[in-house]
Amino acid sequence: MTIQRRIIVHEGPGGLFESMAVSDDAAAGMRPGVLLFPNVLGTKETDFAYAEQVAALGYAVLVADVFGQGKRAKRSDADFGRYMDVLNGDRALLRERVNAAHDVLKGIDEADGARTAALGFCFGGKCVLDLARSGADISGGVSFHGVYDAPPFANAAIRAKLLICHGWDDPIAPPKATAALAEELTEAGCDWQIHAYGRTGHAFTDKSANMVDRGMFYSADADRRSFRAMTDFLNELFG
Amino acid sequence: MTIQRRIIVHEGPGGLFESMAVSDDAAAGMRPGVLLFPNVLGTKETDFAYAEQVAALGYAVLVADVFGQGKRAKRSDADFGRYMDVLNGDRALLRERVNAAHDVLKGIDEADGARTAALGFCFGGKCVLDLARSGADISGGVSFHGVYDAPPFANAAIRAKLLICHGWDDPIAPPKATAALAEELTEAGCDWQIHAYGRTGHAFTDKSANMVDRGMFYSADADRRSFRAMTDFLNELFG
Repeated sequence: MTIQRRIIVHEGPGGLFESMAVSDDAAAGMRPGVLLFPNVLGTKETDFAYAEQVAALGYAVLVADVFGQGKRAKRSDADFGRYMDVLNGDRALLRERVNAAHDVLKGIDEADGARTAALGFCFGGKCVLDLARSGADISGGVSFHGVYDAPPFANAAIRAKLLICHGWDDPIAPPKATAALAEELTEAGCDWQIHAYGRTGHAFTDKSANMVDRGMFYSADADRRSFRAMTDFLNELFG
Repeated sequence: MTIQRRIIVHEGPGGLFESMAVSDDAAAGMRPGVLLFPNVLGTKETDFAYAEQVAALGYAVLVADVFGQGKRAKRSDADFGRYMDVLNGDRALLRERVNAAHDVLKGIDEADGARTAALGFCFGGKCVLDLARSGADISGGVSFHGVYDAPPFANAAIRAKLLICHGWDDPIAPPKATAALAEELTEAGCDWQIHAYGRTGHAFTDKSANMVDRGMFYSADADRRSFRAMTDFLNELFG
């Protein structure tokens, strides 16, 4: 197994984007494709490393840039949410961007465009949900400590199966928001699961998160369990 | 592998009980022990069959009788809840009975009494929770479409890890009851997970359940996913 990274610069709604394809070059033939949507900061090393774990399971992964080439933030930036805020303020543009990223994934040589799924962390979880809400032909989506508010417009029927991995104490998604998501997905008629982890906050997969007082902190248990649940879920979709 | 059943008649709080030990006679040595608490009807063939699947994973299973020898109900009985009602009305007695069953499991030759867990379905899910609430030294517990109301007395600190497999549309446990359980378990300081399945009702593991209008119906997806989650959970405890 030789997991390789390959930068892919692609055009999209509003300019150029720089995504990263990650897959096992020693494997032959096409395999299911998996989009990975990063958190508020945009694509970065921790996403590429997570993508390598997913690629090792037998998938062709694309770490998707939805902000635009060169638009990356750092936690230490005073306005680290600036690129995300643009898309939160224009959910139609977000919808276009996540679908454009899906098209790029489908075009990768090693990805079987008829068998795709999407993963996402934090804001990337919202990207997964908005891709599903757009009626995209992904087989499934997994949100890790995602953001659940629905867009301000009507959605298509959701065709994707969805797995929502959720920290029960996440201040960004309190129980009411989680119940509202459950209701929305039920009304959309889709096959969904929410795995709620107790005594777990936002950002539970992020080893750099340690803001306990703000409800954002890494959890080794939730990180391991959500990875296992994601693995089971992808097996169910494509195994 | 030769999975065997063995009837075990044992004394307990209030009389004699008839449980069923299920394990692989071809396996050598002690292995983790797993209690299986049946639904409202008491021990029956579907429990023994499920126990065989669990035994095949490498566990020594005891399908636990908490009603008393000869006390079994059928769905066609007008008062099929009569044995359960006694224990719902006397949670201290229920607590004694589930702990007595745990002691019986520990005493089985092939079970390692220091490594035990409990599973339960419907009322049996309440049995799992009440065993955990009593502070019992089980490593973990799994509730399938359980019943979540807490006993009317203070509980011990919960030492067990808990996995709650839950149908979101379960009329016996609506979202408020589920959120209340989450709050109770968080306050008890335990390691918990709730896996909620969308468009899924009560009794989702029960192939004989087909009362869709009453929110009780089998779901092949939720049955398979909860079995997988239970397998992962037991692996985490004992693997």
